[in-house]
Amino acid sequence: MKLLVVGSVAYDSVETRHGKVDRALGGSATFFAMASSLFTATSVVAVVGEDFHRSDLDRLERRGVDVSGVEFAEGHTFRWGGKYSRHFETRTTLFTELNVFANFKPKLPQKHAAADLVFLANIHPDLQYDVLEQCKQPRFVALDTMNFWISGERPSLERVLRRVDALFLNDEEAFALSGEGNVIQAARKIHAMGPQTVVIKRGEHGAVLIHGGQAWILPAVMLDHVVDPTGAGDTFAGGFMGYLARQPRIDTAALQGAMVAGTIAASFAVQDFSVDAIERATMADMRSRHELLCSGLLPSGLNLAAVEGNLPTVAA
Amino acid sequence: MKLLVVGSVAYDSVETRHGKVDRALGGSATFFAMASSLFTATSVVAVVGEDFHRSDLDRLERRGVDVSGVEFAEGHTFRWGGKYSRHFETRTTLFTELNVFANFKPKLPQKHAAADLVFLANIHPDLQYDVLEQCKQPRFVALDTMNFWISGERPSLERVLRRVDALFLNDEEAFALSGEGNVIQAARKIHAMGPQTVVIKRGEHGAVLIHGGQAWILPAVMLDHVVDPTGAGDTFAGGFMGYLARQPRIDTAALQGAMVAGTIAASFAVQDFSVDAIERATMADMRSRHELLCSGLLPSGLNLAAVEGNLPTVAA
Repeated sequence: MKLLVVGSVAYDSVETRHGKVDRALGGSATFFAMASSLFTATSVVAVVGEDFHRSDLDRLERRGVDVSGVEFAEGHTFRWGGKYSRHFETRTTLFTELNVFANFKPKLPQKHAAADLVFLANIHPDLQYDVLEQCKQPRFVALDTMNFWISGERPSLERVLRRVDALFLNDEEAFALSGEGNVIQAARKIHAMGPQTVVIKRGEHGAVLIHGGQAWILPAVMLDHVVDPTGAGDTFAGGFMGYLARQPRIDTAALQGAMVAGTIAASFAVQDFSVDAIERATMADMRSRHELLCSGLLPSGLNLAAVEGNLPTVAA
Repeated sequence: MKLLVVGSVAYDSVETRHGKVDRALGGSATFFAMASSLFTATSVVAVVGEDFHRSDLDRLERRGVDVSGVEFAEGHTFRWGGKYSRHFETRTTLFTELNVFANFKPKLPQKHAAADLVFLANIHPDLQYDVLEQCKQPRFVALDTMNFWISGERPSLERVLRRVDALFLNDEEAFALSGEGNVIQAARKIHAMGPQTVVIKRGEHGAVLIHGGQAWILPAVMLDHVVDPTGAGDTFAGGFMGYLARQPRIDTAALQGAMVAGTIAASFAVQDFSVDAIERATMADMRSRHELLCSGLLPSGLNLAAVEGNLPTVAA
């Protein structure tokens, strides 16, 4: 199935304990497509400025990504600058220059409008809605958002959410959107707003899938070296949606598999600046990372029946 | 095998979004023993004041806990007061009155000195060391500590760590103790200090076991109702050590099972104030919570081979 992502393509300046990069390729659509294209044909709709290097689009094209929907507009490319604290507990935004992104009005080429799966990365909910208006009955739509829209553009966000299958957000955003202080209760409220699938992104603590009245948690791959967490959430979404696009049916098992694929993809994203590590990841890397994920999870290798047998057999 | 815990027995005043309690039974040794006694015979060494209600010790005795090592001293019982933010992101300590705990000098009755497993809850590392001096060759010693001792009493802490098998601490404490910013790297440094088993406690995000050159993560049970997280870490340790005490060998499989038992025990602790919920937990509750934990974990119910088959088969 064909996958479309609408979001940002940006130049990031990032500083972490492991170094710094300036004007490195970034943006939600970029991270997403670099991961999803490992699984399926992906098209990107975004806008860049006159300063954007054609060679950076080539990096996506080499992955088979259709970049014909990336518009070159007058002005500069969206830029973001940030700095992480020593142990990545906090991130400080140093600057945000929307530039051409401020006037982004996504126009879908005819061929993109027929996408089977659509990922609406974090942009204004009215733009997300406009994209859906241009789509011809996609089979599965997922949306990412942030507190800025939850608090500032709630009616617009609620309007688009009614047409969305899956919502990606973090704990804090889920609490803000639902008014609840517990992710399971928050997801129940969000289901009532539209999305029947809620994915709670927890960074280094993994992700939670809530769907069909059940919740599953999958921890992130434990890594002994993290360079730059920028883009991990979009990379996760890219692996998730790319995997889904390869499934004959989008059911619970497919969503669970997508959690694994997203988790593996995100584990690469954080190991270098920009999209460098996910871009380098080979099939062999993906498989060995999959093994690392599985071997690091309890109850992997643990006889649960033996644990069960050792639980107290008489009430205390 | 017999299990001994040395720590605090306290009266807590706690406020959360779900209510407040005043002078409720608390303290590290209390939470620990309430959980460990579900699995194995447990003895407590602690000190309380003249104001302490004998009926509170009865609650432990009803669980088969040997409280003969709880000393009644002149003065008031250790008191702690705290308040949690609406979504439990932060906890503010309102007061700490050490009272009789300030002069606590653990003296082990002869019968307790022969304990096979010892848990040194979070007290001054010199007192933890004194306890070990009084023990006769325990088979497995675990220790809990905090940033206050890591930064303020490092030589004392390093002295006792050399005699400890397992260290329980959170991410931040692991970073402070090791000087590393990654738990796997931090654990390597900590292994060199003595403890060959490191357990990273992550609250609602679960726990990590690092042992024998491998790391395993186990998420916490996802709950739709949390009342008061106080004591969850000590309850986890109680379930962990209690489970270990029932194993013929303390090997990797036993430690992995202990992670599950600790996780289940902690999931009760947070669902009411004080030790009320873990005290009420029956064998049937433990088993159904075990099922809830397992059913909420990916890749539970997920065909990993199917995911593997869907990973990219050609390098991009």
